[in-house]
Amino acid sequence: MPLDRFAAAAVIDVLRATTTIVTAVENGARGVVPVATPGQAYAWRSAADGVLLGGERGARRIPGFDLGNSPLEYGRERVAGRLIVLTTTNGTLAFRKVLEASGPGDEPPELIAACLRNARAAAVHLWERARAAGRGVLLVCAGTRGWFSAEDAYCAAAVLKGLAACGTVALGDGARAVQRFGALAQGAREELSDTRHGRTLLELGFEADVAFCAETSVSEVVPRLVDGVLVAPTGWGADPG
Amino acid sequence: MPLDRFAAAAVIDVLRATTTIVTAVENGARGVVPVATPGQAYAWRSAADGVLLGGERGARRIPGFDLGNSPLEYGRERVAGRLIVLTTTNGTLAFRKVLEASGPGDEPPELIAACLRNARAAAVHLWERARAAGRGVLLVCAGTRGWFSAEDAYCAAAVLKGLAACGTVALGDGARAVQRFGALAQGAREELSDTRHGRTLLELGFEADVAFCAETSVSEVVPRLVDGVLVAPTGWGADPG
Repeated sequence: MPLDRFAAAAVIDVLRATTTIVTAVENGARGVVPVATPGQAYAWRSAADGVLLGGERGARRIPGFDLGNSPLEYGRERVAGRLIVLTTTNGTLAFRKVLEASGPGDEPPELIAACLRNARAAAVHLWERARAAGRGVLLVCAGTRGWFSAEDAYCAAAVLKGLAACGTVALGDGARAVQRFGALAQGAREELSDTRHGRTLLELGFEADVAFCAETSVSEVVPRLVDGVLVAPTGWGADPG
Repeated sequence: MPLDRFAAAAVIDVLRATTTIVTAVENGARGVVPVATPGQAYAWRSAADGVLLGGERGARRIPGFDLGNSPLEYGRERVAGRLIVLTTTNGTLAFRKVLEASGPGDEPPELIAACLRNARAAAVHLWERARAAGRGVLLVCAGTRGWFSAEDAYCAAAVLKGLAACGTVALGDGARAVQRFGALAQGAREELSDTRHGRTLLELGFEADVAFCAETSVSEVVPRLVDGVLVAPTGWGADPG
């Protein structure tokens, strides 16, 4: 199934990369650059002004980095006006994989970052892109080191619900499966806590992160990838005229 | 997650590779060799006696092959005593991928073929292997060209149900998801017909195949991979003493 069937693709890594990206952009970061490795992140530090390095390996901050992968570290006072270079185990890789999966010569789908916090706004954005392009949209669950992650499926179900609220949606096999998954779900916090990665985060003391990541449709910010940088929608954060 | 955590892995490609494998072995084939390419299959023809080549590309028989990928072609009169060399788009590849995913030096998990027809028997086999080894088991949904296939998730749910009937089972994220998927499922025939690949098969005229693949827990045969060949359990098909 070639990716040029899709007008847009939403990358979902609820715990925690895409939640962190949405939070950083919402709090005024100039943008977030998803990179694959710490080495690539270090290279950015000298290449541009106002750069902060963020990310994790094994859910912990990378040595020498300014920030970890906790969205709670990405407050306005820390990130406003800064360019964040982010490398995480799963989420930032997922952006790259979608780009690489696009055929040569194909225009890749527009890439956005989705999480529970911007689930409804992401759905509305996807709906509008799909309608404008007359093509479908793709929900990319980042998973955990190649394995299925229940929290990403749960979030995909939330985005699907938002799409269905916009109008009639034809579902592929995977979308139908996450829709059923969502239909039998408990509350967001319970769902996130009862996953493999959620349990790991709780064991490491990240209760507040899990609670923050579980807040659903509280943000209107839909970061999209433009020239390799996840940026706010046009007009977001601009001074009022 | 290294694969040596798992005592056994069940490869599931309901439409139709693993249904075909189970049927061939049930009908007395000496074994089924899953290979990746038609070229590898051709090489087998001259290398061993009594070989039949089977498989598909685009759901259709490969030119020069003896059999396609319809389980209905694998009747006793055709396959008894023969060695089947099978290459399909997804199912036979999945066996290879599990072997390749095992770390160097690790003993790979025992590989079996599971489908709806042998769902309960496969579950009992997996349960016994897990208990004997004190390790978990893995359900490998083959999917369709790298995409999620609802029919394989539905089958995984059926195998899980069989495992749960054996005793208490701890579920990973993916297993919990397919369990929910199965909980909201209609009948097997409806489920298989309402999938991307099921619809393709119906359009190509394979109604009887879909009906045959939907028959659930009607076979006790659990083919397992021994030296690269999927063979019947010990004693299966042997003359009564």
